[in-house]
Amino acid sequence: MLELKSYLQDEWQSGSGDGATLFNPANGEAIARASTTGLDLGAALSFARKEGGPALRELSFAQRGEILTGLSKAIHSHRSELLEISTLNTGTTLKDSKFDIDGATGTLAAYGALGAELGERTFLLDGDGLQVGRSPRFHGQHIQVPLRGVAIHINAFNFPAWGFAEKLACSFLAGMPALTKPATGTSLPSHRIAEIVVDSGLCPAGSWSFLCGSVGDLLSHTTAQDVVAFTGSAQTARKIRSQDRIVEQSVRVNAEADSLNAMVIGPDVEPGSDTWDLFIRELTREITQKSGQKCTATRRVFLPPNLIDPAVEALRESLAEFPAGLPTDDSVRMGPLSTPDQYPDVVEGLRQLAGVAEIAIGSIPDGDGANGALIEPVVFVCKDPARASLVHELEVFGPCCTLMPYSGDPIQGGEMVARANGCLVATSYSDDLSFCRELLFELAPWNGRVLLGSKRIAEHSTGPGIVLPQLVHGGPGRAGGGLELGGLRGLKLYMQTCAVQGSRPMIEKILDA
Amino acid sequence: MLELKSYLQDEWQSGSGDGATLFNPANGEAIARASTTGLDLGAALSFARKEGGPALRELSFAQRGEILTGLSKAIHSHRSELLEISTLNTGTTLKDSKFDIDGATGTLAAYGALGAELGERTFLLDGDGLQVGRSPRFHGQHIQVPLRGVAIHINAFNFPAWGFAEKLACSFLAGMPALTKPATGTSLPSHRIAEIVVDSGLCPAGSWSFLCGSVGDLLSHTTAQDVVAFTGSAQTARKIRSQDRIVEQSVRVNAEADSLNAMVIGPDVEPGSDTWDLFIRELTREITQKSGQKCTATRRVFLPPNLIDPAVEALRESLAEFPAGLPTDDSVRMGPLSTPDQYPDVVEGLRQLAGVAEIAIGSIPDGDGANGALIEPVVFVCKDPARASLVHELEVFGPCCTLMPYSGDPIQGGEMVARANGCLVATSYSDDLSFCRELLFELAPWNGRVLLGSKRIAEHSTGPGIVLPQLVHGGPGRAGGGLELGGLRGLKLYMQTCAVQGSRPMIEKILDA
Repeated sequence: MLELKSYLQDEWQSGSGDGATLFNPANGEAIARASTTGLDLGAALSFARKEGGPALRELSFAQRGEILTGLSKAIHSHRSELLEISTLNTGTTLKDSKFDIDGATGTLAAYGALGAELGERTFLLDGDGLQVGRSPRFHGQHIQVPLRGVAIHINAFNFPAWGFAEKLACSFLAGMPALTKPATGTSLPSHRIAEIVVDSGLCPAGSWSFLCGSVGDLLSHTTAQDVVAFTGSAQTARKIRSQDRIVEQSVRVNAEADSLNAMVIGPDVEPGSDTWDLFIRELTREITQKSGQKCTATRRVFLPPNLIDPAVEALRESLAEFPAGLPTDDSVRMGPLSTPDQYPDVVEGLRQLAGVAEIAIGSIPDGDGANGALIEPVVFVCKDPARASLVHELEVFGPCCTLMPYSGDPIQGGEMVARANGCLVATSYSDDLSFCRELLFELAPWNGRVLLGSKRIAEHSTGPGIVLPQLVHGGPGRAGGGLELGGLRGLKLYMQTCAVQGSRPMIEKILDA
Repeated sequence: MLELKSYLQDEWQSGSGDGATLFNPANGEAIARASTTGLDLGAALSFARKEGGPALRELSFAQRGEILTGLSKAIHSHRSELLEISTLNTGTTLKDSKFDIDGATGTLAAYGALGAELGERTFLLDGDGLQVGRSPRFHGQHIQVPLRGVAIHINAFNFPAWGFAEKLACSFLAGMPALTKPATGTSLPSHRIAEIVVDSGLCPAGSWSFLCGSVGDLLSHTTAQDVVAFTGSAQTARKIRSQDRIVEQSVRVNAEADSLNAMVIGPDVEPGSDTWDLFIRELTREITQKSGQKCTATRRVFLPPNLIDPAVEALRESLAEFPAGLPTDDSVRMGPLSTPDQYPDVVEGLRQLAGVAEIAIGSIPDGDGANGALIEPVVFVCKDPARASLVHELEVFGPCCTLMPYSGDPIQGGEMVARANGCLVATSYSDDLSFCRELLFELAPWNGRVLLGSKRIAEHSTGPGIVLPQLVHGGPGRAGGGLELGGLRGLKLYMQTCAVQGSRPMIEKILDA
């Protein structure tokens, strides 16, 4: 069987023993193995700090950006192969594979372009210079400089390419060496990308490392200048945050966790209108895209009571156009879950939801998923969302959502969304400006991103599920409290803000400010 | 004895039982008591969230700023009384009392002025609007909105007034209600300020609360929208960060911890020069101001070997001008430690340092501090700082510092500073531009602030120990990883950044962007 290696200390290294097995989720076949047993992870981090850090810090933003652009092109030149690998290991349809792979190259390219804009500097000026004493001679200027440690990227199983790329783009451009650790179960696309990155010869030695398999004792080697950026479950985020070493060293941790993202439909929206159709189209995509396995997928939908039945009817029709099946079959528009071990979790979650909500569309599968982790879309209706706390707390990571009534008052709608205790994204559908305004300010403290769906963008909206490099990705509370991307904002996690005080001419000369 | 109360749910409340005792550190006399036993802290936080939050969010930045300006004036109008209370409870000389009290009013006034600049908005636009789709119609704009919880401010014993004010200024202007919890031992000045704040009638009900005494179960009532801003020991910062409730709710925690701040003297600096005199003057102030009890105080000084003896000689002379004694005695220029219980800790710390460094000035006191926690300045010389790790790890929170040789190479100087694993501030003294440049970029990743001391600012420098509202305060690693103040930057801790996507005209209308 294929043995996946790790790339540490500027060379491919193999762990010992059997390690973990990777499967094709469409048929349950074992396809590869990955082990990190016996690898010296402390030495790998030291090498990155000592060799990769200085090499990267010497480069200007423009030069770092050029490397990112090069990586984007190198990965894109293997697109067809990567799309196939993606389908093989994550069960995605061609369209869903593209979503991951093209998302990766697009994000690298966006940060490549940002590097070019930032130009020949190696650090950032943060704000303007300030007079900080009675005399203008005593001057202050904030700067942002790359941290001296390693950016440890622990990625989620659902985006083996995009997750890899979006985190790497930010830390690399910031000037900090990275170690990418994909989720083992779906690490085949990540591993192939790692090979492409190595073969490109673009990254200075130690500026980028790759750990394929168990995370082992990696985090116990972290220092105060390292950063851990994690995407995955809220539970694992908590574990990382409270690890002794992380707490003791004040290691920066950024977490993006699953959350119960929501939509709120305004009382002005009429079935059949452009805004309604946009809502149905985007919700259908949220349910079916990547079989509902996105951290940004919408799980809860709040509608005025009279709109629930029309929504169920419209969804029944639209979901019928997304037959689930083997991703290699051209007529199939929704593949299986990405890993076979997700199957029992999703089925159990659907059963729990069925305890507090009625099934309006679909049914809970009764197979064991052994021959392919296929799950058809399930739409629930929960009539009393104020009392059914489970619908706001239990995220079922598959093709499902729950429709719920609310009064039509934006404040009440916002309060319902907030019951999930922090989300990555929320969407409103309405053309009523004052409704949108009131709702937005209820949603904003609880969400990292708010999409205002309206008829004017019916043809242009990319939907709530798509994370753009220009806009921040992350949310408070349950969503992990993190912040990634957002253009230049995404670099800050990897940099130290430092206030410089002194004589104005000296500071201006040193900083070229 | 005077019983200090707490101000919760818009009324003064008394805890039951004896509580903790506050002392006059100059003579060991008990002066007040504070208890929080039996107070319903969960209800206090709920009240602040329900009543204070909405009231504050309704106000514009200008209106919030006006209140801060009003508070600054109200506190300033009680200046003489507060200076006396400060001396009584914290043992500070008149000058050191002014440092705390005037620092408080100055910071409130600075944020009051910032509020006026921000004007009639109730939230912040973050960056420019962006095209986020193929059509310019699909638009994005980041905003920052106040969080919906309570800002819990846990302050340190050494700045009962300034710590109170600098944290309150930021959260209040951001639009988030605050609960101030001073360190109990020196809470008499904080308590008097709390009375002034209440009597001013300026703060809407619930927008500000005050907890005087033990923190009790306060943190177990926190939610995902609350913020904890802590100043104190690195050890307590770790405890707060790893509390179950804090981790479970992803509560934002900002920590400012003690750190082993440093100075690096360039090989170009000649004894007797303006830059040398600035160095000696500022180091003397760092040792003696507030009896060395500042989180920003310089503990480690790196000099070219030939400058160590001249520095000892110069310090012997300058420190002689700071006789320690009772703060009420006009000839005294350095008071006792702020609380009697610090005395044995400081003495024990000095003994430990004496194990790895020679005492060049002063001696380790052999009393028990029972009649006043007086400690004379102690200057150590450690000849082998590369091997003596204790000098980089053990912070003795009193009037002391350690002089150490380094090669004169800025990179090596920077590496020495970094051995303390993150500091609030570092200072260089040099007029050599290329030395300063190299050193600055070694220091910046490890320090929240870097002061470049030079002859051109010899008359203007405020020294490393003074935290200015315009510049960030905080440092990585051992220093807690936090960021406070820095003008507008200080508000961010209390706000959620949210990306808004939608139709450009709709977003511009809603946000008035």
